[in-house]
Amino acid sequence: MSDTLGVRPQPASEIDEWDYEADVVIAGYGIAGVTAAIEASEAGADVLVLERTGGWGGAAALSGGFIYLGGGTPLQKALGFEDTPENMEKFMRAALGPGVDEAKVHDYCQGSVEHFNWLVAQGVPFKEEFWGEPGWEPPHDEGLMYSGGENAAPFNEIATPAPRGHLPQMENKRTGEKGGGYMLMKPLSDVAEKLGVRAEYDVRIQRLIVDGDRVVGVVAKRYGKLLTVRARRGVVLATGSFAYEQQMIEGYAPRLIGRPAAAIEEHDGIGIRVAQALGAQLAHMDATEVAFMGDPQMMARGIMVNGRGQRYIAEDTYPGRIGQATLIQQENQAYLVIDEAALEEALGTETATRFFRQPPTWAAETVEELETEMGLPAGALQSTVEVYNRHAEAGTDPLLKKKPEWVKPIGTPVAGFDMRNYTAGFTLGGLRTDLDSRVVHVSGEPIPGLYAAGRCTSGVCAGGYASGTSLGDGSFYGRRAGRAAAHDGPESN
Amino acid sequence: MSDTLGVRPQPASEIDEWDYEADVVIAGYGIAGVTAAIEASEAGADVLVLERTGGWGGAAALSGGFIYLGGGTPLQKALGFEDTPENMEKFMRAALGPGVDEAKVHDYCQGSVEHFNWLVAQGVPFKEEFWGEPGWEPPHDEGLMYSGGENAAPFNEIATPAPRGHLPQMENKRTGEKGGGYMLMKPLSDVAEKLGVRAEYDVRIQRLIVDGDRVVGVVAKRYGKLLTVRARRGVVLATGSFAYEQQMIEGYAPRLIGRPAAAIEEHDGIGIRVAQALGAQLAHMDATEVAFMGDPQMMARGIMVNGRGQRYIAEDTYPGRIGQATLIQQENQAYLVIDEAALEEALGTETATRFFRQPPTWAAETVEELETEMGLPAGALQSTVEVYNRHAEAGTDPLLKKKPEWVKPIGTPVAGFDMRNYTAGFTLGGLRTDLDSRVVHVSGEPIPGLYAAGRCTSGVCAGGYASGTSLGDGSFYGRRAGRAAAHDGPESN
Repeated sequence: MSDTLGVRPQPASEIDEWDYEADVVIAGYGIAGVTAAIEASEAGADVLVLERTGGWGGAAALSGGFIYLGGGTPLQKALGFEDTPENMEKFMRAALGPGVDEAKVHDYCQGSVEHFNWLVAQGVPFKEEFWGEPGWEPPHDEGLMYSGGENAAPFNEIATPAPRGHLPQMENKRTGEKGGGYMLMKPLSDVAEKLGVRAEYDVRIQRLIVDGDRVVGVVAKRYGKLLTVRARRGVVLATGSFAYEQQMIEGYAPRLIGRPAAAIEEHDGIGIRVAQALGAQLAHMDATEVAFMGDPQMMARGIMVNGRGQRYIAEDTYPGRIGQATLIQQENQAYLVIDEAALEEALGTETATRFFRQPPTWAAETVEELETEMGLPAGALQSTVEVYNRHAEAGTDPLLKKKPEWVKPIGTPVAGFDMRNYTAGFTLGGLRTDLDSRVVHVSGEPIPGLYAAGRCTSGVCAGGYASGTSLGDGSFYGRRAGRAAAHDGPESN
Repeated sequence: MSDTLGVRPQPASEIDEWDYEADVVIAGYGIAGVTAAIEASEAGADVLVLERTGGWGGAAALSGGFIYLGGGTPLQKALGFEDTPENMEKFMRAALGPGVDEAKVHDYCQGSVEHFNWLVAQGVPFKEEFWGEPGWEPPHDEGLMYSGGENAAPFNEIATPAPRGHLPQMENKRTGEKGGGYMLMKPLSDVAEKLGVRAEYDVRIQRLIVDGDRVVGVVAKRYGKLLTVRARRGVVLATGSFAYEQQMIEGYAPRLIGRPAAAIEEHDGIGIRVAQALGAQLAHMDATEVAFMGDPQMMARGIMVNGRGQRYIAEDTYPGRIGQATLIQQENQAYLVIDEAALEEALGTETATRFFRQPPTWAAETVEELETEMGLPAGALQSTVEVYNRHAEAGTDPLLKKKPEWVKPIGTPVAGFDMRNYTAGFTLGGLRTDLDSRVVHVSGEPIPGLYAAGRCTSGVCAGGYASGTSLGDGSFYGRRAGRAAAHDGPESN
């Protein structure tokens, strides 16, 4: 069979023989793929997953494992947090935009409790313990944490703060062997296997196979050999982001050039491209998660300043927001200024030292000296600290509304951490899908037989991010994709 | 003929009768369309332009008329400015990124002098006079002006400043009847007419017609009736931006929700969508020009501060950069702080009063008072002014490097202008095209028979902007599209 088509769709009439057949064919065995597989299988479909690596897992298994859930999950309730779907929606609309898919965010919030219960029913363990310190993730196996700045300015004035970062209980957090992502993927892939889901590994999809407008299979490649895979009911794309596809990064999300992270190298955007070749619509291709490698415990106790020595964000917020603000709004220029006492306090916390121990870039007896050492214009940093201290004496931060518990005048001696280029991230944009995870054509109608979920789609995030939204919408809409594909098929059109 | 296809391509085999035929069919009679028409016609092609309004012009005819050109144009030379293609390229790469199409920017800079001469040869008039004041456009019919912040920080340290905003001479600048955009479009459309270019008005394209992979025509609509138009050699899409297509704005460039401008309502992204339906690749869909309605003469003489009372941009730069920085980096929060003497000086200039006269939002005897009236935290604005004044006494601005000629301590009484929501803009993202203006498929190869230019394509701007780059790349790559399409055709494949 010719391979000159590249990502262009191939007519089914050209296929002489099918190497594999299934009702539902899923490309990618990460979080979206496994959840699609389970639901499709439970709906009675014969399911085949094609995975380009040697095993299930995807980026999900390597991730921290946060799933963004709320609206009053049993875990939230057990730990004394009140939340409603409406409150959750208020936060998500404010924090993940501008331009969020409002129907999708509403749908996701409404279905969030059911989704949590479903995960638990599949065997995903959540420990009833809350971690309330600033940080990227809890130091132990706590099951719940703030993960998007819900309890920090400006969102704590927009919606009632509730932690929504749900974390599968880790078996051995200290060694990191079985992290939250693994503990999410393991039970799900076990369920899939028990349900009889088949998987073929080392198989990369190349293009879609079409019969008229309808997607009826995929062409894939294993060890250089092309394979044809027939999908009797539907194809689900679950191939992840485009964080490692250089031309797409340059063309859509150039601020990430040279700084891909928290995704795996397999994330080459192939799912997006094969669907684009069929006229699929895209959304929010510039949106990116941005990790920031600074220690949240230190940042909350100090002040973050930009390349002009100005504060720009409430330092006690979700570090992913600090990352986005730094990369997108501050030209990747960031410094942490913190006095010796606060630094020692931060270093005494459990989370700070493990991930972030590093010496200050500069240390000085006065802010004036530090300012000079940092190469800032005379007065630039001094005035920032003066204004901060002036209000901190009264325990307030009217400029950025850091919470009073973290507000304390900056004394001396004082240290500066150079945090320029502390950012890295992955892409959030992708295929536009509807609430049944059907891939939407640029005409506005779904493409028959084609579904997608996970980071090859534009999910609940339009520009902002909260940890757990990727595994969240990936699993939520992965399930939808599996269910809808299982009931699809030429006869049901 | 059925209209259920929407933007989906229609097979030529379904077309019983062609309502119109031409070698090259161009959709849109703005700057990209007219330049494509001239070149195609001069290359011997029979050309038909389909325009959805009642006449030629597009957004170009209503615009200020800036064309971004340089590298040593005769006009630059006559007015004593040195420039080279390499110097121009250095600026464009720095100012229009990140993520500029490097091959395109290089190509554009190399061809810029030739392109200027070509425009002059078509009868576009440029007056040999330079306007050096800060502003959006000259107050009279001057032909050359800085239009992208070339002579301001940070670009004046990256490349040798040269003005590149070339302006067609206006006939009656004062009344605005025949602005620069009209004076660009009029001679070009005259040339097209003389060359025998045909035009059909009130005709909107609906979708492309294909023969296999090749584009061979378009389906269009006039007064509700579908028309079939055959293109023997090629179709050129020149239908403008998507600034007025609500779903595309929400999905790609949501910061522009509610603030489209400097484009015409016909800019509905149709050219992008019909090509996407064929698998066309996109680029930089989030990129936007952002106009800022503040007076450059006032801004240069005062300081611009964000919602925290902090300076964020060299105030003497191109106002479009102030617009982008304000909308994208400062959450659309901007205030101008200026003392009475500087304000009076600004109001005494020619350009300030005509476009921007307005009373200050606040006026106060001291900065402290102004700060209170503006509702800023105590010390926030005072410290900004103190640091600015401290260096301004010595005539420098180490924080943002405003040029010494505009640096003067801010005295009292002092005024504040509320410039929140002073932004509006149009979109810069669109189809990815190659140097021959061929629309690139997501597979990386050009789509046979399909060309595009102007704001339905991603041109030389990836994120930044300079006035004149739209008419610049629209005309430059419009010509390329016309020439390439004229030489295209099934027999030349």
